Amino acid sequence: MSTLTNLNSLDEISALTLPIYDTAAAAAAMTRQNSLTKPAGTLGRLEELAVFMAGWQRCERPEITKAQALVFAGNHGICNQGVNPFPQEVTAQMVANFEAGGAAINQLCRASGAELSVVALDLEHPTQDFTKEPAMQPAETLEAMQRGAAAVDSEASVLILGEMGIGNSTIAAALAYACFGGTPGQWVGRGTGSDSEGQQLKARVIEDGVTRHKPARGMAMLAALGGREQAAICGAVLEARVHSIPVILDGYICTAAVAPLFDTSPAFLDHCLVGHASAEPGHRQILNAMNKEPILSMNMALGEGSGAALALGVLRAALECHNGMSTFAEAGVSGG
Amino acid sequence: MSTLTNLNSLDEISALTLPIYDTAAAAAAMTRQNSLTKPAGTLGRLEELAVFMAGWQRCERPEITKAQALVFAGNHGICNQGVNPFPQEVTAQMVANFEAGGAAINQLCRASGAELSVVALDLEHPTQDFTKEPAMQPAETLEAMQRGAAAVDSEASVLILGEMGIGNSTIAAALAYACFGGTPGQWVGRGTGSDSEGQQLKARVIEDGVTRHKPARGMAMLAALGGREQAAICGAVLEARVHSIPVILDGYICTAAVAPLFDTSPAFLDHCLVGHASAEPGHRQILNAMNKEPILSMNMALGEGSGAALALGVLRAALECHNGMSTFAEAGVSGG
Repeated sequence: MSTLTNLNSLDEISALTLPIYDTAAAAAAMTRQNSLTKPAGTLGRLEELAVFMAGWQRCERPEITKAQALVFAGNHGICNQGVNPFPQEVTAQMVANFEAGGAAINQLCRASGAELSVVALDLEHPTQDFTKEPAMQPAETLEAMQRGAAAVDSEASVLILGEMGIGNSTIAAALAYACFGGTPGQWVGRGTGSDSEGQQLKARVIEDGVTRHKPARGMAMLAALGGREQAAICGAVLEARVHSIPVILDGYICTAAVAPLFDTSPAFLDHCLVGHASAEPGHRQILNAMNKEPILSMNMALGEGSGAALALGVLRAALECHNGMSTFAEAGVSGG
Repeated sequence: MSTLTNLNSLDEISALTLPIYDTAAAAAAMTRQNSLTKPAGTLGRLEELAVFMAGWQRCERPEITKAQALVFAGNHGICNQGVNPFPQEVTAQMVANFEAGGAAINQLCRASGAELSVVALDLEHPTQDFTKEPAMQPAETLEAMQRGAAAVDSEASVLILGEMGIGNSTIAAALAYACFGGTPGQWVGRGTGSDSEGQQLKARVIEDGVTRHKPARGMAMLAALGGREQAAICGAVLEARVHSIPVILDGYICTAAVAPLFDTSPAFLDHCLVGHASAEPGHRQILNAMNKEPILSMNMALGEGSGAALALGVLRAALECHNGMSTFAEAGVSGG
């Protein structure tokens, strides 16, 4: 039973007590790194990743025995505003493609050794158009969060998160604008196939939505502007945290999905890595605001968890070095 | 028998006729990429890597059935100038560590599925001190190139190159300065454990060496300033090219090692990717001069082929997507 199952309202989320980073395990891992046969620090980010994993797995030598990947899919009422050139049927078609093994995320999970599950969230009932009313009711939001939480395998060593949903780059921009401010235009990229007229429309739509729901912050912001896959991602992030499972977030849409958690408490994302910097310009801005350094930068902008799954390979390599290398003393190498 | 075995002098290298990129195979791969179930271009660098591999493997669907990693090790007379805080014995100790499986490169090759061989090049006979005389004689240089070439497996799908040699960050800086000009100081980083006094010494040493051997360009520059592992890397790069095998170069030292080839003819490096941008500041400058975009940027500065081996995982993922994804037509997804 997921921990979030016990919650009766969105308001209770801000009061959750969650495990924190184990600084003793991280320090032990750092000491080990400094004893390995390499000049100190020369594995750069790989050393940081090994220490991060140690802190969350609460042991000197973290391992990845089971990597879980979850892709959540949803549909969005905001598509009524014409923000997307693709029909909403594509969401279900892509879910079928995930299930048949034909999408990018299937290949990337196979390449990096992650077990993929896809959770389609009421695709036949899109959320409401947020320019007219809240996208979701609070109970509907909590339910989607609980579905996300329930999908998390408590035995996973690491959790990769991704999403699919026609129109959800507009959702991402709305959440980012509501959470971090600035101007609507700065959060709007091309999304999936939009031209510059499409971008102007998206900017107007998110301005309308954010203005209408202005005082909403945190989880209320998620309900007002988000979608079910965003809520499910938030639920999965919290559930992973309860089990001290490190998370790899994907690109712009996945990172914007957790902006309401960040808005509630930045520490809610302490166990989250970000797999890559998306080509969507809003992503770097969110990452700067959240003080997160992406692992990769491949000019990708696909979603589906693709950048997170790719980064899993780097994380595995970091732990192979951490656990498999000899120390200076073991190898009889001078200079350690 | 390696192709370079037939050469009798370094001068003959500039006249080699080598295979070029297969633009028809690359175009077929690009057409395939555009038919796969993703908005065009959204796999970013992964698409470029798949197309690059197609062009060099000369087929629409390139594969990695055998990934070879070669690490060449050498010792350097320039260490007599006190440019390195570590004793030269560490080169042989690290070779033993590679052979015992305890170094970073062993773990990274296992993680990315590369078969590693280490070639120690006359470690007991360091090259000459290039501030006093040429580091190597032409025949010695050609011999080291031929040893590098002979180590290449002509059946490999991709070749990863790396190096080990106490003092060879000074060799790298000398080759980069000789090839690309500027000031000595701009090419000198910390190397393995140098402080700022050490860096000033290194800058003076490379100024002396490059001034002494001034008119030398191309392969003569390699002989005057390089070492055996640099020559072996050049030989392996040429041999891979003869067999149309794509290469992944590693960091600063490995990329500087092929500067003499670039100086001879930039097209000699057309089949070479660069695995990562090293934390050594000179590396980005060389990459800019060579117009090469590194695959990863992990703040690593270890050498051994570590960044190249890590990048192999990304290359494998790129080909998994290229070969394994369904097309829009196959998956019945709208919008292709």
